[in-house]
Amino acid sequence: MSILIKNIRLNGSVSDIYILGNKIEKIEKNIQIQADTIIDGSGKAAIPTFVNGHTHNAMTLFRGFAEDMRLEEWLNEKIWPHEAKLTEQDVYWGSRLGVLEMIKSGTTLFNDMYWHFHGTARAVEEMGIRAVLSAVLIDNFDPLAAQDARKNAEDLYEASKQYSSRIQFSMGPHAIYTVSADTLKWAKAFADQNNLPFHIHLSETEVEVNNAINNFGFRPVEYLEHLGILDENVIIAHGLWLSDHDIELLAKRKVKVVHNPNSNLKLASGYKFRYQELRDAGVCVALGTDGCSSSNNLDMLEAMKVASLLQKAWRYAPTSLPVDEAMQLGTENGGKMFGLKLGKIEEGYLADINLIDLSDPTLVPLHNLNANLVYSAGGGCIDTVICDGKVIMENRHVDGEEEIIKNAQETAMTWIKR
Amino acid sequence: MSILIKNIRLNGSVSDIYILGNKIEKIEKNIQIQADTIIDGSGKAAIPTFVNGHTHNAMTLFRGFAEDMRLEEWLNEKIWPHEAKLTEQDVYWGSRLGVLEMIKSGTTLFNDMYWHFHGTARAVEEMGIRAVLSAVLIDNFDPLAAQDARKNAEDLYEASKQYSSRIQFSMGPHAIYTVSADTLKWAKAFADQNNLPFHIHLSETEVEVNNAINNFGFRPVEYLEHLGILDENVIIAHGLWLSDHDIELLAKRKVKVVHNPNSNLKLASGYKFRYQELRDAGVCVALGTDGCSSSNNLDMLEAMKVASLLQKAWRYAPTSLPVDEAMQLGTENGGKMFGLKLGKIEEGYLADINLIDLSDPTLVPLHNLNANLVYSAGGGCIDTVICDGKVIMENRHVDGEEEIIKNAQETAMTWIKR
Repeated sequence: MSILIKNIRLNGSVSDIYILGNKIEKIEKNIQIQADTIIDGSGKAAIPTFVNGHTHNAMTLFRGFAEDMRLEEWLNEKIWPHEAKLTEQDVYWGSRLGVLEMIKSGTTLFNDMYWHFHGTARAVEEMGIRAVLSAVLIDNFDPLAAQDARKNAEDLYEASKQYSSRIQFSMGPHAIYTVSADTLKWAKAFADQNNLPFHIHLSETEVEVNNAINNFGFRPVEYLEHLGILDENVIIAHGLWLSDHDIELLAKRKVKVVHNPNSNLKLASGYKFRYQELRDAGVCVALGTDGCSSSNNLDMLEAMKVASLLQKAWRYAPTSLPVDEAMQLGTENGGKMFGLKLGKIEEGYLADINLIDLSDPTLVPLHNLNANLVYSAGGGCIDTVICDGKVIMENRHVDGEEEIIKNAQETAMTWIKR
Repeated sequence: MSILIKNIRLNGSVSDIYILGNKIEKIEKNIQIQADTIIDGSGKAAIPTFVNGHTHNAMTLFRGFAEDMRLEEWLNEKIWPHEAKLTEQDVYWGSRLGVLEMIKSGTTLFNDMYWHFHGTARAVEEMGIRAVLSAVLIDNFDPLAAQDARKNAEDLYEASKQYSSRIQFSMGPHAIYTVSADTLKWAKAFADQNNLPFHIHLSETEVEVNNAINNFGFRPVEYLEHLGILDENVIIAHGLWLSDHDIELLAKRKVKVVHNPNSNLKLASGYKFRYQELRDAGVCVALGTDGCSSSNNLDMLEAMKVASLLQKAWRYAPTSLPVDEAMQLGTENGGKMFGLKLGKIEEGYLADINLIDLSDPTLVPLHNLNANLVYSAGGGCIDTVICDGKVIMENRHVDGEEEIIKNAQETAMTWIKR
């Protein structure tokens, strides 16, 4: 399989891009070669696809279901009781809806943590994008629940081998307040044996930090260091309440951090994400949307914009998190985080490419494409999406989208009344 | 001229909407009547169009031109020198681009302050939306400049009578640090004589407040009160740095306040807009995007989202500025601010209506339409826009949009090199 994109704007000039198999084979002006598919790139620009560093994809089903509530009430009365009723088939349709939304907004890789693993895995397989899917571990400090959680993770890991290379398996202990130290250590050992990422919510709220100090005698990051868990395969979601010492530890152990600005704002978890200090310490930071129950959409351009605006605001410094860096957090850094050659359009990189329609009013005039994308456009400017060397959206149409909308809508309405 | 919209979702149930001339004549199930245009509303929802309470529309030409800079450098090196070179024809194309973007994101009324009045007025006339257009007044405390500014405002007011009722004239003294007390008072007297709104930037930055105290002996709001200017026809843009006493004065004098969250964040002007205190004092608050030089787009759904998220974040209260209120700020309150029956879909209101495509993935599932619109969707879910009883966008297509994109792009590239 090969694709030739002709006369496409790339990094400020016009080239052709030749894709062979799932890789970018050649970038040059006027490539003379036969290809299975030829795409006319005139009036368009090629940019890397986006990486959503932290989400709960199937929670699209909760979009708009519980709004403007206090965290405890929101979790206890709305999220948890209804989450318990979800079936694998519900998760499948919720995930297809989420993947559809991600494709339409230019994302081809997401890092997920959710129940009913196979529901999400099937959706990803069928729709042609990439995902890092976690086995969720929660034991609530109960040894019997811990046994079940471990067995479940082992089984899922074995079963996950049936899927294509677009799906990576990951260990997903939920958080230090829902998973015992023993299970955390077990999960990290299992991850190490099988060379898997370890994905955990950490330092999301001030309450979590205070409770950790009270219950374990450590701040959350220090606690994981104490348990011997921190290393370069650990990805923490949020990292919103970090001390200088926390940042030193994260840098020393090469831990990766995913910032979810919209979720943090909406749940009022906090807004002073210490991006600059993390970056200056050498920590790899990427961006995520979190689940649609808290952030409501999966739009990575919006995540980049809000991340950048927020840094400028709380620091009273308009030079903070400039636009090219914001774009890097949403593309390249996401690729690095999962060890994939993603997030750049260069020869040898995976063929994950967005073609942008430059006639979208929000992209005019073209003084600065990245600024237009991050600060002005929404996902709607994305015309064509290529993932793993295949065209998965063309002219904003994704195969089967009408069926997905219909089934996701029906699934949500049936499940919520169950 | 009449329009009949059949089987449209409105406030949770399905109705027909009959528009006669520029008003909503009847809302009822299954209306049996002849109409010039019949629109099939199935699969769609009707919502009010949005009101952009403060912008500098033609500054679309600056989109992406000067990013991530300190305010002084940004103004002195980038904005002002290039602004000085703009012609009326440049402003015309910049304004047409802005109006195109507004229509595509569901806005049919904007409150503008910019040079080359007729450039913007022509764009608005031709494209069928509404605007409140200010005569900009700046005298930099120079009596000769003051004379010119006053003469110019008087002339523009006379000339503005040539335009349709969709265009309202307004007095637009730029700010208290660029306009002398005498000119401010003159402008307010002229506004009062001719029953015009008075639109001014006020209390946008902490520096402005401190300078006002040093130079005039008053905080900005108190200074306008001292000059006898504050009343119900005064609209202040920003009002970001307000004391309790400022809020008391604004409430007492029924002054209107336009909050521009994205601009305030991006320019690092501040983020603690005192929405709750203003609302509780009874002040009418609406939302704006500010110009594309600072906020980069004209998307009112984004303004609603960021306004809401910001309140929740800085107050550490997820119940702040709930979704229905955010929608009200972007619709109804904007209508009230300019004395127009706008921002609600009710019999007797002006026929300014957005039809939303409910199959947009960001609007699925449909637990809560307002939450989907404010927190999830972008302007791209808007399928059809009706303004003043005329269809100005259908199936996301606006007449002449290709020409606008081409000319705005060329205008920006030519002007910037001039």
